[in-house]
Amino acid sequence: MSTPIRYVYEFAEGSRDMATLLGGKGAGLAEMTRLGLPVPPGFTVTTEACRTYLATGQEPPELGVQVAHALANLERAMGRDLGRADDPLLVSVRSGARFSMPGMMETILDIGLNDDSVAGLAKASGQERFAWDSYRRLLQMFGHTVMDVDAGLFEQVMGAHKAALSATDDHALDAEELGRVVEEFKAVIRRETGEDFPQDPLEQLYRAVRAVFGSWNSERARVYRRREHIPDDLGTAVNIQAMVFGNLGPDSGTGVAFTRDPATGERGMYGDYLPDAQGEDVVSGVRNAVPLAELEHLDPRAYGQLGDHLRTLEAHYRDLCDVEFTVERGRLWILQTRVGKRTAEAAFRIAHELGTAGTITPDEALARVDGTELTRLMFPRFATRASDVPLAHGVPASPGAAVGVVVFDSDAAVHRAAAGQQTVLVRRETTPEDLPGMIAAEAVLTSRGGKTSHAAVVARGMGKVCVCGADALVIDSAARQFTTPAGAVVREGDTVSVDGTAGTVYPGTVPLTASEVSGTLETGMATGPLTQAVLSLLDHADFVRRLEVRANADTPEDAARARRLGAQGIGLCRTEHMFLGDRRALVEAMILARDDTAREAALAALLPLQREDFTGILAAMDGLPVTIRLLDPPLHEFLPDRTDLAVRIASAARPDPHDRELLTAVERMHEQNPMLGLRGVRLGLAVPGLVAMQVRAVAEAVARRLRDGGRPRAEIMIPLVGTVEELRLARAEAERVLAEVATETGTTPDCPIGTMIELPRAALTAGRIAEVADFFSFGTNDLTQTTWGLSRDDAEASFFPLYLEKGVFAASPFETLDQEGVGRLVELAVKAGRAVNSRLETGVCGEHGGDPESIHFFHRAGLDYVSCSPFRIPAARLEAGRAALTGAAGGDSR
Amino acid sequence: MSTPIRYVYEFAEGSRDMATLLGGKGAGLAEMTRLGLPVPPGFTVTTEACRTYLATGQEPPELGVQVAHALANLERAMGRDLGRADDPLLVSVRSGARFSMPGMMETILDIGLNDDSVAGLAKASGQERFAWDSYRRLLQMFGHTVMDVDAGLFEQVMGAHKAALSATDDHALDAEELGRVVEEFKAVIRRETGEDFPQDPLEQLYRAVRAVFGSWNSERARVYRRREHIPDDLGTAVNIQAMVFGNLGPDSGTGVAFTRDPATGERGMYGDYLPDAQGEDVVSGVRNAVPLAELEHLDPRAYGQLGDHLRTLEAHYRDLCDVEFTVERGRLWILQTRVGKRTAEAAFRIAHELGTAGTITPDEALARVDGTELTRLMFPRFATRASDVPLAHGVPASPGAAVGVVVFDSDAAVHRAAAGQQTVLVRRETTPEDLPGMIAAEAVLTSRGGKTSHAAVVARGMGKVCVCGADALVIDSAARQFTTPAGAVVREGDTVSVDGTAGTVYPGTVPLTASEVSGTLETGMATGPLTQAVLSLLDHADFVRRLEVRANADTPEDAARARRLGAQGIGLCRTEHMFLGDRRALVEAMILARDDTAREAALAALLPLQREDFTGILAAMDGLPVTIRLLDPPLHEFLPDRTDLAVRIASAARPDPHDRELLTAVERMHEQNPMLGLRGVRLGLAVPGLVAMQVRAVAEAVARRLRDGGRPRAEIMIPLVGTVEELRLARAEAERVLAEVATETGTTPDCPIGTMIELPRAALTAGRIAEVADFFSFGTNDLTQTTWGLSRDDAEASFFPLYLEKGVFAASPFETLDQEGVGRLVELAVKAGRAVNSRLETGVCGEHGGDPESIHFFHRAGLDYVSCSPFRIPAARLEAGRAALTGAAGGDSR
Repeated sequence: MSTPIRYVYEFAEGSRDMATLLGGKGAGLAEMTRLGLPVPPGFTVTTEACRTYLATGQEPPELGVQVAHALANLERAMGRDLGRADDPLLVSVRSGARFSMPGMMETILDIGLNDDSVAGLAKASGQERFAWDSYRRLLQMFGHTVMDVDAGLFEQVMGAHKAALSATDDHALDAEELGRVVEEFKAVIRRETGEDFPQDPLEQLYRAVRAVFGSWNSERARVYRRREHIPDDLGTAVNIQAMVFGNLGPDSGTGVAFTRDPATGERGMYGDYLPDAQGEDVVSGVRNAVPLAELEHLDPRAYGQLGDHLRTLEAHYRDLCDVEFTVERGRLWILQTRVGKRTAEAAFRIAHELGTAGTITPDEALARVDGTELTRLMFPRFATRASDVPLAHGVPASPGAAVGVVVFDSDAAVHRAAAGQQTVLVRRETTPEDLPGMIAAEAVLTSRGGKTSHAAVVARGMGKVCVCGADALVIDSAARQFTTPAGAVVREGDTVSVDGTAGTVYPGTVPLTASEVSGTLETGMATGPLTQAVLSLLDHADFVRRLEVRANADTPEDAARARRLGAQGIGLCRTEHMFLGDRRALVEAMILARDDTAREAALAALLPLQREDFTGILAAMDGLPVTIRLLDPPLHEFLPDRTDLAVRIASAARPDPHDRELLTAVERMHEQNPMLGLRGVRLGLAVPGLVAMQVRAVAEAVARRLRDGGRPRAEIMIPLVGTVEELRLARAEAERVLAEVATETGTTPDCPIGTMIELPRAALTAGRIAEVADFFSFGTNDLTQTTWGLSRDDAEASFFPLYLEKGVFAASPFETLDQEGVGRLVELAVKAGRAVNSRLETGVCGEHGGDPESIHFFHRAGLDYVSCSPFRIPAARLEAGRAALTGAAGGDSR
Repeated sequence: MSTPIRYVYEFAEGSRDMATLLGGKGAGLAEMTRLGLPVPPGFTVTTEACRTYLATGQEPPELGVQVAHALANLERAMGRDLGRADDPLLVSVRSGARFSMPGMMETILDIGLNDDSVAGLAKASGQERFAWDSYRRLLQMFGHTVMDVDAGLFEQVMGAHKAALSATDDHALDAEELGRVVEEFKAVIRRETGEDFPQDPLEQLYRAVRAVFGSWNSERARVYRRREHIPDDLGTAVNIQAMVFGNLGPDSGTGVAFTRDPATGERGMYGDYLPDAQGEDVVSGVRNAVPLAELEHLDPRAYGQLGDHLRTLEAHYRDLCDVEFTVERGRLWILQTRVGKRTAEAAFRIAHELGTAGTITPDEALARVDGTELTRLMFPRFATRASDVPLAHGVPASPGAAVGVVVFDSDAAVHRAAAGQQTVLVRRETTPEDLPGMIAAEAVLTSRGGKTSHAAVVARGMGKVCVCGADALVIDSAARQFTTPAGAVVREGDTVSVDGTAGTVYPGTVPLTASEVSGTLETGMATGPLTQAVLSLLDHADFVRRLEVRANADTPEDAARARRLGAQGIGLCRTEHMFLGDRRALVEAMILARDDTAREAALAALLPLQREDFTGILAAMDGLPVTIRLLDPPLHEFLPDRTDLAVRIASAARPDPHDRELLTAVERMHEQNPMLGLRGVRLGLAVPGLVAMQVRAVAEAVARRLRDGGRPRAEIMIPLVGTVEELRLARAEAERVLAEVATETGTTPDCPIGTMIELPRAALTAGRIAEVADFFSFGTNDLTQTTWGLSRDDAEASFFPLYLEKGVFAASPFETLDQEGVGRLVELAVKAGRAVNSRLETGVCGEHGGDPESIHFFHRAGLDYVSCSPFRIPAARLEAGRAALTGAAGGDSR
């Protein structure tokens, strides 16, 4: 005969390692029981029992006997029997899953009360009102949760009784009145369900357990799990525990305590206490709690014991603990503990201080913080007041806080910025046309597009605040105003405050608090315990990480800032950003050139400008690699919009001949799908002299830096390669020019030449491509677009919300790398590339290079570096360090 | 000591199996020598010697001794010594590579003549003029080819002498005159090169051999090889052979003979003969040859011998042979043989007749023809005369011949067709808007786009004639005319003749010849030897092939035609084609619907129309599978063009409110890259009721066919799936509707549900997708686009010509499957899909399904079927059969 499965564990039998079986709460209760803390006794029904119930509709046959056995032990320990008429044992029945799902599932208290035992409770407690109030609570919770009666019906009864007494507080109802409430509650249950409230305490218990089981599959629980990525098949455990009461008078109470301040991380007991109350009263917020320190005056003994227990728990859990406790007539009971949630600031301080104290190792300390938290600490914050009502909500696309006057086009932003005004650029969506305005403005607000729309990507790249997709706003650029759903009209010149961290926009000026962390990261000088913690943990991350961190930066200023923030080079320097602004006319001339001479003249005019750009960037990154990507976007992006131009010509009495010429060029170059058109290396091969001009600018900049005693380390990156032949041709051209410049200048500019891997075909044929590439840089933005056949600009605005809602994606593949599809291509390419070329350097320069989860993947895939926008560098360093702690070191396979 | 490498083979030592080493010509000469045919003796210097020469700039050291030895044997056999003064042996030095490169490399005749031996030749031949003419020819060829003298200089001298005699024919120059020419030629050589023409016959020989080696790398040879995909590193062999002379008088001559007519395949000797001439005179076309049959009268003995030799050769080579021969004073010499080139018609007849005669096996007969030839036979042809001058040349995008009046828009085509007129639709490029016109027209002519432009793809799908990318035409749709480069203006209503096989357009009506093959393929009834051959070879292909062949067809008419042509079902039925024409208004209503009710009404109106479509198609394919793809293109494709609409509104005094409403919708739905936008399954999930309507139409059509006693086999295909979750959701919706219809109708419509694999991610995660798919259909058009990141409409018009020219592609990846990239995804997906779902059916429905080379790949990859446009089905059947002969049978791996 096989041993029957155990579905029930008494608290004294479990431990914190059994959270999968006992749930988080059950495991915590068991652990505290083992530590000798004063936990009301009880037992846990396992998640396995729940799963069986959910799968079959019935609890396992063994469960009844096992519960009866545990209940008997509980009754023996408490010296009382469940629901006994003269002095009843009451129990709580609470859910408790593996992962915390606060408020998502059911709890039923005071199981064991009935028409008889309510009198026994009154007698034993000496408090008649308390007993009837408890019975009333049981009927209300059980009636709603187990018997499915509309909760509003009970509220109505309570309301009517209070109204009759002209009272607003439940305390106005005395025992007699509550007795009448109880009778009416029972009548409601009978009327609504056709059955009586069960008087049998055991029936109450079993039905409550089943209700908790069933609540796992409630709609709200499912939605919550989907959002939090919790699997649907875990099930919940159920904890049955002897009730203790904090509402038996002034020597009773209930509270929440933390071992450190969860807001700041400061050491010392911290929390709230509510005298003469039950736990649910704390949650409902009917009465105001007092600071925990007050308990020292109210009950010094309980306070002292609590302090001892908190120290025990923190030492045992080696982390911030969050404890629920009750004082019943001077006796302290601990009802729950868990590792406490904390703010980003507290996370850093606690991890650092526990590490310094030797409670945890430096690796553990590093594992306790993350890059998202660090990024959050780097932004200035609005000091909002409760009275501040947002104008709009949108997607928090680029974090931070900014204040400025509203402008509706790029020109206005540039002009006002030139006049010293701070501006917020408001557009339906942005295009490369808007770039000057985006550079000039403090923040960007759009009504269309998601986190990877043009506005979002560019703003993040520049570290500008951005809220996008605020789709309730009606933006009328022509009228230079936008309207909010509430009917407010904001006109050009009005001031707004944009919170890119929260995705909200406020009217007027909300005061700002600067980030001390941000300053410290650039200077390396700590200014207090928080910044000390940040620097120390980053130090350790740098020590353990294998992945290098480089920056995506296109200007000397960005490069210098990135370097201060810890960048070990530039992984992506986009040359197209150097073709905008005043230089646009030259690009236009190149495009409109009717013959070789005109085109060469335009290119010749661009050459010195590009050389200056590169010289500055190489100087800022002296001694570190700078990967320069040759021109990537289709040329028509540098020309005006086709429809705008056609309408302008159609509307004009006498159309500008230049407009006509432009329209002809735009028509000729129009592409159905420009992302898949004439761009990248294709452009380089199709436009004579373009690659040569750019490579010459790089080589001459390198030569100049060498002459000036610098250590320039330029790398030339060919974008959008699909087949090795393209790279071979472009490389030959580049090498020809490098050799020319070497001869002309008498220097030997050593420029590795590599390629973006941003097309599925490049990844699939990486073994061939690696024959002529010195490095691979995974352009995971475009690789995601082509692997999925998704234009992010189009898709995020149209069906992404639907897909996220339906669970097609857990997260946008543009935010977090799709490891199954795109990631597989990355792995294939790294492996094939290295097999052919053991010195091949590999990195990633897409948006994913700054995404924590993706960084862990890149570490496992064995890449050499990630590259991200300057602002994300500290977070990337931190995550690269964390990845080295946990990930299989893909680098070992080299 | 190792055996020295052999660089020289006498003809009697070689065989036809040694073509790699001896070249095609050398191997043929050796083989004929072995067969005892009268071949002038000689020897071959190997390709290996050439490769050494090209690599090092010097011939191998052993070569001299080996040539000397072979030459000594040759002299012994001929009883004369090279260049001996009294009776010289003369030799020819000819190139001969592994693959035929006609006219690309050098030939030098009459080696061995010099100032002394010219007299000996005169004496020995008894013809002084012949001797001096031969010497003149040697100086001319050697001077130009070996010594690099401008050929024009020799022409000038000849011209001057003829002018002096007022003659136009070389024959006017007698021996004395030619002696003067010889002196002047020698002077030209001395003046141009600073050296004398070498009098030493051996020096002549060695320098000639080296010149032939060098000619392998001439510009024209390189260009030819690139075009013909011949590797650059093969090198050429050199054949040194005793000269025989066809120009020694009326009992001499030269000719070309075929064992069968290479134009029709008819049995019997066939060729041309030129009395008293050398081979080069035949090529130069100075004099007209007579039919070979004349030789029977001129020299019955030689004619009889030639007939014997031709029979020997055809029996030996088991194929049509093409022979060059010379009669020297009544003695027949065979100078070259090779397997002869032939027309498509001849290929089929010869293969079939050799097979029937038992000369070759049925498999060999099948291997001797191909699908491209078969397709060529299926089109009507223009009977053009030499005087017909084309108006324009373009890309031969969809073969065949059509005559019609020119129209410049879809409406005009529809109206004129309704009035019974045949039309040619002329557009800059076509869009889905033009579809009604394309259906109405006989042919489509565009000035933009390549073989996979919209016009080309749609026209091929419909079997319409199409010439596209005729970029020299200036099409002015507004003025309703186009202009040719020659300045001709063609106006709406003018008649033109379009040859889609050649890519040419003629003015007026060129008479047509119908294709007997095309008729026979539909009826199955042979009408003559050609059609008999075609049917017989197709029969054998059907017998041996493993791949099924299905059709891409969207109408009952196309389905019926496809079935007659041998389709085993429909692999792709595109439902979007059913949303055009009159139904457009309903689609527009669906798109513009402001609420669920309006959208449901629009869908409800579409339902019966779709049901009729499906019922008809299922009837036409009764008993065979019909794979119906749910709506794929983005909805805005059904709306007018954004720029057109914006200009119309801007230009109108009082804009149409409907236009404004449309523009708002178009603006809202505008996508930067529609190919990567809201389409396929995304659309199905985003537009409520769309999938349900289409599935219901399928299910109801199936139910109706079942009720009518049919055997409907509908399959539902979900397009553009990137992740299994999409398919899971769409499948659930489809299954729900199928169950509903089953209940309503009391039938059990059994519809497998599968997906297109047309995104890299779908291929990479095929193992997951196969869990919920009954079949995979590889949409290799879109898969190529996303794998390469290429929009074919954009790319073919912009940089494809450049890429083909630079050799980045050998062929457009849209024409012939890119096996290395896209093919790898197909292989990965088939393998992963079958591992999970052993009953998974796999096919391909992209354009590649009808491409011969790609069909061979799909056979090797183990797919179950290919699907192509109806017209390509016979070719696909043939190629599937040929693939089964040669390809590794991928199906074995199942």
